[in-house]
Amino acid sequence: MSEITARGEKKLVLASGRAHPELAEEIASWLGTELLPVSAYDFANGEIYVRSGESVRGTDVFVIQAHPAPLNNWLMEQLIMVDSLKRASAKRITVVSPFYPYARQDKKGRGREPISARLIADLYKTAGANRLMSVDLHTSQIQGFFDGPVDHLMAIPLLADYIRSRVDADNVTVVSPDTGRVRVAEQWAERLGGAPLAFVHKSRDLTVPNQAISKQVVGQVEGRTCVLIDDMIDTGGTISGAVQVLKSAGAKDVIIAATHAVFSDPAPRRLAESGAREVVVTNTLPIPSEKRFPQLTVLSIAPLIARAIREVFDDGSVTSLFDGNS
Amino acid sequence: MSEITARGEKKLVLASGRAHPELAEEIASWLGTELLPVSAYDFANGEIYVRSGESVRGTDVFVIQAHPAPLNNWLMEQLIMVDSLKRASAKRITVVSPFYPYARQDKKGRGREPISARLIADLYKTAGANRLMSVDLHTSQIQGFFDGPVDHLMAIPLLADYIRSRVDADNVTVVSPDTGRVRVAEQWAERLGGAPLAFVHKSRDLTVPNQAISKQVVGQVEGRTCVLIDDMIDTGGTISGAVQVLKSAGAKDVIIAATHAVFSDPAPRRLAESGAREVVVTNTLPIPSEKRFPQLTVLSIAPLIARAIREVFDDGSVTSLFDGNS
Amino acid sequence: MSEITARGEKKLVLASGRAHPELAEEIASWLGTELLPVSAYDFANGEIYVRSGESVRGTDVFVIQAHPAPLNNWLMEQLIMVDSLKRASAKRITVVSPFYPYARQDKKGRGREPISARLIADLYKTAGANRLMSVDLHTSQIQGFFDGPVDHLMAIPLLADYIRSRVDADNVTVVSPDTGRVRVAEQWAERLGGAPLAFVHKSRDLTVPNQAISKQVVGQVEGRTCVLIDDMIDTGGTISGAVQVLKSAGAKDVIIAATHAVFSDPAPRRLAESGAREVVVTNTLPIPSEKRFPQLTVLSIAPLIARAIREVFDDGSVTSLFDGNS
Amino acid sequence: MSEITARGEKKLVLASGRAHPELAEEIASWLGTELLPVSAYDFANGEIYVRSGESVRGTDVFVIQAHPAPLNNWLMEQLIMVDSLKRASAKRITVVSPFYPYARQDKKGRGREPISARLIADLYKTAGANRLMSVDLHTSQIQGFFDGPVDHLMAIPLLADYIRSRVDADNVTVVSPDTGRVRVAEQWAERLGGAPLAFVHKSRDLTVPNQAISKQVVGQVEGRTCVLIDDMIDTGGTISGAVQVLKSAGAKDVIIAATHAVFSDPAPRRLAESGAREVVVTNTLPIPSEKRFPQLTVLSIAPLIARAIREVFDDGSVTSLFDGNS
Amino acid sequence: MSEITARGEKKLVLASGRAHPELAEEIASWLGTELLPVSAYDFANGEIYVRSGESVRGTDVFVIQAHPAPLNNWLMEQLIMVDSLKRASAKRITVVSPFYPYARQDKKGRGREPISARLIADLYKTAGANRLMSVDLHTSQIQGFFDGPVDHLMAIPLLADYIRSRVDADNVTVVSPDTGRVRVAEQWAERLGGAPLAFVHKSRDLTVPNQAISKQVVGQVEGRTCVLIDDMIDTGGTISGAVQVLKSAGAKDVIIAATHAVFSDPAPRRLAESGAREVVVTNTLPIPSEKRFPQLTVLSIAPLIARAIREVFDDGSVTSLFDGNS
Amino acid sequence: MSEITARGEKKLVLASGRAHPELAEEIASWLGTELLPVSAYDFANGEIYVRSGESVRGTDVFVIQAHPAPLNNWLMEQLIMVDSLKRASAKRITVVSPFYPYARQDKKGRGREPISARLIADLYKTAGANRLMSVDLHTSQIQGFFDGPVDHLMAIPLLADYIRSRVDADNVTVVSPDTGRVRVAEQWAERLGGAPLAFVHKSRDLTVPNQAISKQVVGQVEGRTCVLIDDMIDTGGTISGAVQVLKSAGAKDVIIAATHAVFSDPAPRRLAESGAREVVVTNTLPIPSEKRFPQLTVLSIAPLIARAIREVFDDGSVTSLFDGNS
Repeated sequence: MSEITARGEKKLVLASGRAHPELAEEIASWLGTELLPVSAYDFANGEIYVRSGESVRGTDVFVIQAHPAPLNNWLMEQLIMVDSLKRASAKRITVVSPFYPYARQDKKGRGREPISARLIADLYKTAGANRLMSVDLHTSQIQGFFDGPVDHLMAIPLLADYIRSRVDADNVTVVSPDTGRVRVAEQWAERLGGAPLAFVHKSRDLTVPNQAISKQVVGQVEGRTCVLIDDMIDTGGTISGAVQVLKSAGAKDVIIAATHAVFSDPAPRRLAESGAREVVVTNTLPIPSEKRFPQLTVLSIAPLIARAIREVFDDGSVTSLFDGNS
Repeated sequence: MSEITARGEKKLVLASGRAHPELAEEIASWLGTELLPVSAYDFANGEIYVRSGESVRGTDVFVIQAHPAPLNNWLMEQLIMVDSLKRASAKRITVVSPFYPYARQDKKGRGREPISARLIADLYKTAGANRLMSVDLHTSQIQGFFDGPVDHLMAIPLLADYIRSRVDADNVTVVSPDTGRVRVAEQWAERLGGAPLAFVHKSRDLTVPNQAISKQVVGQVEGRTCVLIDDMIDTGGTISGAVQVLKSAGAKDVIIAATHAVFSDPAPRRLAESGAREVVVTNTLPIPSEKRFPQLTVLSIAPLIARAIREVFDDGSVTSLFDGNS
Repeated sequence: MSEITARGEKKLVLASGRAHPELAEEIASWLGTELLPVSAYDFANGEIYVRSGESVRGTDVFVIQAHPAPLNNWLMEQLIMVDSLKRASAKRITVVSPFYPYARQDKKGRGREPISARLIADLYKTAGANRLMSVDLHTSQIQGFFDGPVDHLMAIPLLADYIRSRVDADNVTVVSPDTGRVRVAEQWAERLGGAPLAFVHKSRDLTVPNQAISKQVVGQVEGRTCVLIDDMIDTGGTISGAVQVLKSAGAKDVIIAATHAVFSDPAPRRLAESGAREVVVTNTLPIPSEKRFPQLTVLSIAPLIARAIREVFDDGSVTSLFDGNS
Repeated sequence: MSEITARGEKKLVLASGRAHPELAEEIASWLGTELLPVSAYDFANGEIYVRSGESVRGTDVFVIQAHPAPLNNWLMEQLIMVDSLKRASAKRITVVSPFYPYARQDKKGRGREPISARLIADLYKTAGANRLMSVDLHTSQIQGFFDGPVDHLMAIPLLADYIRSRVDADNVTVVSPDTGRVRVAEQWAERLGGAPLAFVHKSRDLTVPNQAISKQVVGQVEGRTCVLIDDMIDTGGTISGAVQVLKSAGAKDVIIAATHAVFSDPAPRRLAESGAREVVVTNTLPIPSEKRFPQLTVLSIAPLIARAIREVFDDGSVTSLFDGNS
Repeated sequence: MSEITARGEKKLVLASGRAHPELAEEIASWLGTELLPVSAYDFANGEIYVRSGESVRGTDVFVIQAHPAPLNNWLMEQLIMVDSLKRASAKRITVVSPFYPYARQDKKGRGREPISARLIADLYKTAGANRLMSVDLHTSQIQGFFDGPVDHLMAIPLLADYIRSRVDADNVTVVSPDTGRVRVAEQWAERLGGAPLAFVHKSRDLTVPNQAISKQVVGQVEGRTCVLIDDMIDTGGTISGAVQVLKSAGAKDVIIAATHAVFSDPAPRRLAESGAREVVVTNTLPIPSEKRFPQLTVLSIAPLIARAIREVFDDGSVTSLFDGNS
Repeated sequence: MSEITARGEKKLVLASGRAHPELAEEIASWLGTELLPVSAYDFANGEIYVRSGESVRGTDVFVIQAHPAPLNNWLMEQLIMVDSLKRASAKRITVVSPFYPYARQDKKGRGREPISARLIADLYKTAGANRLMSVDLHTSQIQGFFDGPVDHLMAIPLLADYIRSRVDADNVTVVSPDTGRVRVAEQWAERLGGAPLAFVHKSRDLTVPNQAISKQVVGQVEGRTCVLIDDMIDTGGTISGAVQVLKSAGAKDVIIAATHAVFSDPAPRRLAESGAREVVVTNTLPIPSEKRFPQLTVLSIAPLIARAIREVFDDGSVTSLFDGNS
């Protein structure tokens, strides 16, 4: 038969929800392209409408959405965008959610709890996502919740390199604000040249007989610069409390570093008044000016995401961005 | 081998989200039972946490949720509840959504639109719902979006029976506010004893040469009591406009009837000032006091839902509640 | 490692079932290609055998099939073709069903009915179809029955443009033969320059007291050319009856227009004798010579389908063929 | 909370398609029950409509359908019935297809062939079937095509016991009409007390030098009563030819035994004139009077199916009906 | 129609693979029942054959399998058992894997790694498992890998209660052997009445200038009884090393406690010679006599699993076995 | 928007498990490429770890694994490799399993048996395989177990062409060692120019009255060279026994031919001592030197697999390698 053939070509499309347009535009700018024009608006009862202004047939689409409050809204917007792109014959759809929604509910801590983080992965899949990209998942196991490839980017190098330039490496202790993130603190410690570790924890003070249980530091922090790390800061209660414990334990000063600045009230005030010398975060979530305070430093995650998108599109290696880890 | 056997038993459980607790409680009351105790609260960034206070293993759970604004929130709450119940070994889960979310986006009206109503059906399925119950779907085809049994309840008998008691049946015309609901108007007309039909529509007025296009009534309404019907009233613009067109066309008076009182602003004011004699709706959605107005009559949908749940639980017939239609 | 790479190339393949080879050949001709050679035959008990005569590995196949009587046969043939192409490593399979089978059973009109139109969508998916293309679905919601992209083509422009050339636009009324297609009539009316609407419906004649219910026209048709529209004409009873009602109501003359000429007996005779001036349809279904009659005009749908297939293959825009609607 | 509980109860429902109502009724009679009242009819273009006349909520339904010509029609009817029962909340649906459709296309004999038998299994599953029951599958591997439990009933005991009463066991040879069913012939031979085997096959006759290839019997049949077995008889060409070859090879007489009497033309005439003493089949397919001939004996499969359904419903053992084999 | 109904009844069946029959029998004994008779054997090339000796139609089966070396063998045996039970019409299948296979590979630590723990969950699901029961998953997030209910049992109460009877509660420190299990150590500490925490970790010794990195204890252990905890002990290298570090740091004595005794060589020797006072484990994995040593105490997990199975079967609450946690 | 496009390119990657590296390397060599560097090792308890040493994003990967004992180990390794490649964003994954695991358990021969061959197909699919390639499946129906394309390669041409060069074609009889492979023997016979068929089978010897049942040859073998064929030789009992029966029946000599040399003990000894003139097999499974014996001839399957992989990668035709059959 007479054949109709055409050269295979692939086309990168960046689409963004409305939660954090600045980040999406910055990513587009790093990639030297523009965002897909999308009509998106809310009906009075909260229903969301989206529609691409251009054909996306056969394209490799990355659907960028941040997830600040009202998180469920932005999530549904992203799901509806994915559905519309799937039905519009996009060839491949990668959900880019720098802050993974519901990441903290990643297990049944008690009977009858949901595992919302798995549910989210399944909702993305059901809507039509083929792939997922995120930054510093609350636990790495969330990668396994999605039935497909996950590009797990890490902000630790970005944050740690910045902090290294601000401290005396020989006098640093990396501190986890609770028992659950000591492993992550260890990764930080390696990045900072083998710094010692500590963590804050409720227990009996062994130095005082019959003492009631209270927050204690486990590990040596006296006279040292403490880098207090976490993956996210929500209301800031735990982390601000940890600063005080560290100070009481004789820490010289404290720098807080976290990837995701959820910054629910009263986090900004708490952090500003916590006594920490500096609070370093990234812009995986939008940080409006009223949530900013003097000690805050915001590093942009856009270059990292842009590079990862480019590697994915070019069938390169995302892992190579992180020395083989992901 | 020595056997362990037990008598099969089935147990009905009613669970409710936080969107419209009055309706759920009224349903429970009609069924002579109580709602499952559920802990549910919001994190500061909008994430929702839910957990049943009692074991639900092996039970037949009905998860009632209304979907007023902020709709995406209530939807996610319902999905998370379903996930938690599935993981808690509920035997069968029926989602009860009296007002089906995103029902209006049930097709691609234009290229690249999502079909959000199908997406919703798939999200329910993915979360773990086995069955779906809803009232007066925007289009009946939505039943086909869900991969499983759907109990489609109809409020027309409830509304029509009430209205029949308020009008002179011989002088009634049933009016659709646009061309899309004439079929539904026909069902109303049958229920009201074969009343004539009319609809409102933009077209040329044949009686005036060279006239511009404007809203016209097709069908005879002069001197008659018009029952203006719709499945839902959102901002009330179309339906209020239709009242005026009917009045201009000589209608004696107008009664508005709709199942779902979305009542986004400025619906209450518009309806109150529309000139309609009465506005009859059901409580599939909560109607707070500030949205109520003198002409408003709210009929409770709870008895109907309670009866349907009972039929489902007892393996009876839901269809029989509607003379074989569903 | 030494790499083996090859340039990506895509190849369009047109395959056709045996239901309506003329249409498939006409589409191929518009595309400037030929149909895939396929062996297909029936076993004595009705089982169907199909096999492609050429390799289809890695190709973009469009499986064209019409669905006249015996419809189930042609449907199964199409499903078996899809299965064979999937197992033969076709890269992407698009089912092209100009007349969507079982489209009328798109909801549970009564309890315990099937939703056969959804079932068909699932059967296509199960056999291996990635995409679906159809013309004038009975209801647009059927797009949502398929879990994947649907290209919904519209014959209204084709039909309406033809009719516009045959009538005096100022004296036309568009008529729906029942209450269910008034919305579609409205689309026609817009295409014909804002023509007024009417519909036929069983109700009481308001001008005669105590009158029994009978078929009435709602809307003004006296002295006007009525374009009586429908998506399909099966046995022709409803539409022929509507012609008579329109004539009785004083219509000047009547033109019938429909996309799908199912033409089950006794449709041809009924239409020929209905009094309609002209009956305009497309060839989405084969119309053998014995079903043709003097007033019949058949417009070819092949150019539209050919253009849509080309757009799909080229990752162009199908929506653009319809001014953004689909 | 105040509980609503009910005793678990299970209810057996027998539903039948229209292909072979006598068989379904006979099964119902053996079970001491009646068939579910079902409305089923064809539209003029071949579309099928079905609807149960009674509620089937929570029941254990067996959907019996035979598959004679026009096979695709009866298959679609069965699929649509399953869909309607699923949507009507049946608890469990078992498809009972005594003659499995498309069983012969169970592999890719040549490249690009479909595997229709697998497709059928997937279509049943997609429509909503949880289980499958069939008789003498063309190959046992078809059990593995269905993703769920398959009850594979065997007619060999029924047929063999009958034949044993008609022959001298010491003088019987079991003959396969081709090379593909020698294993099944072996099962027959065991059932007939270790009878010898033979098969018919195209090869060179070793006793004649340079002879062309023709049909030969492999195995000893001279002077013996040959039981020529097959799973189905379609047009009867192969099996009638085999009778002649056996006669030429000196067989005393020949009895044909097969489970499925497809009997496409000209099977009845061929069989009647083949020279076989008796042709023994079951009624898994309807055999209208015009297809019957003097040598034909039809044994009823109904008691076997009825017993199997009862075992399935009672959670008994179907395997025990066949001495542990299935 | 005349109805056939039967009383619903449910039947508990315990099936066991061949990896650890003693555990299965002990569970059966606690439940007062016997194991399902199963034929299981290996072909010479390693293929496994299994078949139940009794009908399991309609039963609630629990498929117990331990996963010592050769782990892949026991896993495949369990999958094949599940497949056979599914096809034999078991009503519900719960996989009971006290030691979850491949639990350690629960994330992509580096790019291009598998997430084997998710794969295992999917394999169970694919084979036909409806539910999963396990003990002390390596990370709780593995619960989210399975698409269905997971009963996550905890051995901590069993182990901790035993250890509490062996130590002076006021002088105990709970120690994690690395940074990844500090959270679990915290749960232990709570169970032991708020004991202080410590962990072992590679870092610089702050007390020695310019010192190289080596293993250090973070937290106070001098003069205290250390309970060194882990979820599993494989080759015992890490944990034995930790004993030495603790001793060097002045610990009074060390008790090792772990749920899963993988005990690959040379674990038994290492543990025996480690200097630990006692090594307490459970029998989730078989511990043959040649792997036992004087300091070893093995507590039976069977009563806990038996109680959990009973709760699952009775639709009771597994969570209640753990004070609301799971 | 400014577009980012790239030329589509496809890249072939060959990956191999550790079961039979020689075969994989030989295939790579025929293709003129090298194997993907993969780290793979076993943990002490049998868990397997694999990781690709290079990026595989967007590639077309063929995962070659042989399945000798311990078969379950190699199977799990292959599944884990597929999982890791899927998560590493390979574009398409083809499992190449020359000897299909568990092929013999392809049906429920008795009630409650598993259908392990279907389970294997589902496990491959679940892990992430898109396609499957195998050689001489035990039954062709296994192609239908996989939900996707299967390339079924045939070694008969390779084996038969070799044997034709070693025998006098006019004096050859093809013999099936049992009743189940007579069809395959027929394919051999055709390849060898229409040779006659025979098979070995337990039955009564008709020439001896009242004789007990024993193994008999059906068909003429006296004075002829028998080619005794099978798809695999496991312990060699059946096939060695068949040699003896053939010799007793007067066969001149016997050549054994089989595709898969499972060669479990004591196959090598049995075959060596069986009296067969030659035993011809392929290297779909590794044959270590201690399993080799003088009469053994091993033909390499690598060229055939290499050609098939190339056809698949190039979207050519695999069927054409076998004259249209597959």
